[in-house]
Amino acid sequence: MTLAPWRTHLSGALHRNRSLVYSRYFQLATVRQDGTPANRTVVFRGFQEKCDRLQIVTDDRSAKIVQIQHNTHAEACWYFPKTRDQFRLQGTLEIANFESADEELQAARRQVWENLSDNARSGFAWPRSGEVRSPSEAFEVDPPNPKTPLDSFCLLLLDPYCVDFLTLRGNPQNRWIYDRQPDGGWTEREVNP
Amino acid sequence: MTLAPWRTHLSGALHRNRSLVYSRYFQLATVRQDGTPANRTVVFRGFQEKCDRLQIVTDDRSAKIVQIQHNTHAEACWYFPKTRDQFRLQGTLEIANFESADEELQAARRQVWENLSDNARSGFAWPRSGEVRSPSEAFEVDPPNPKTPLDSFCLLLLDPYCVDFLTLRGNPQNRWIYDRQPDGGWTEREVNP
Repeated sequence: MTLAPWRTHLSGALHRNRSLVYSRYFQLATVRQDGTPANRTVVFRGFQEKCDRLQIVTDDRSAKIVQIQHNTHAEACWYFPKTRDQFRLQGTLEIANFESADEELQAARRQVWENLSDNARSGFAWPRSGEVRSPSEAFEVDPPNPKTPLDSFCLLLLDPYCVDFLTLRGNPQNRWIYDRQPDGGWTEREVNP
Repeated sequence: MTLAPWRTHLSGALHRNRSLVYSRYFQLATVRQDGTPANRTVVFRGFQEKCDRLQIVTDDRSAKIVQIQHNTHAEACWYFPKTRDQFRLQGTLEIANFESADEELQAARRQVWENLSDNARSGFAWPRSGEVRSPSEAFEVDPPNPKTPLDSFCLLLLDPYCVDFLTLRGNPQNRWIYDRQPDGGWTEREVNP
């Protein structure tokens, strides 16, 4: 397969900002059931193999799951501090949970689970986030099996259909918009910053 | 007036991350007219005097203006890399443009305009953002008068009604949610991370 043309710029930004661990974090916006926007920081877990979908992990019990079931649209805003590049990735989200029948998705879900740290995996055995704080014993869990994802573990896949790339270097700054076409190809246009 | 209780934590984060210029940037999510979320990086321009509203600047011609006129709700996601603190600020946005009759708002708008750099002010005289790239001459504008905001210059005020503060230091991490009450006061509750 051919990678989307914006992937080159994103790979470049990831590489040039690699000294900053938080350059792999971005902000993911979704819409709540009441029509208001939600926004939180998530960690980029690489691209799904052989496609342009970004991998994120989340807990089945988190508020964003219900939001996504109601409205699959999302926009990731990813700012790279060192190179001053911003990517806005508009797309739809797919949830891969323990019940997903698609074998390729389950394989991706297992792979991302394996790549997590023990600490990150343990979080999926913790009490439900956002609820009244549990006593500290509730967080003392045995590290889960690295080969078998807990049922609460979900892989989220963001499939972009529009990517807005702005680089703040230069005056005026430079900006391009990429749109996915019905045939899967992409158009590129240079726009005013 | 009494400052909201989350202001102490936010001021602390701003202070402890002050060596990073980009710790004053956050991601602002709004909802498009078609019901999909939008998300972009903006610069924090301080709090409006004597209240808890966050100041942001934007161009009257930018897409977010139409989004806000249609749905005033927004969520700011603000991640502080050095201290590993995240603030999610849910609130409503008010637009102060050149026509706003409220004298207090106009004073705040003029003050923020004055505090901008010449470069930032010039951007408000540039061709419309997001349109096909204009020739470079179109970006060669005289620096606008620092005392008189251009008509395209808008001040955005984010008035939070719910603040979710997560600090990633510690295992488990620590998290508090603040809700504004009808009387203007705030409740605080500690929740699971």
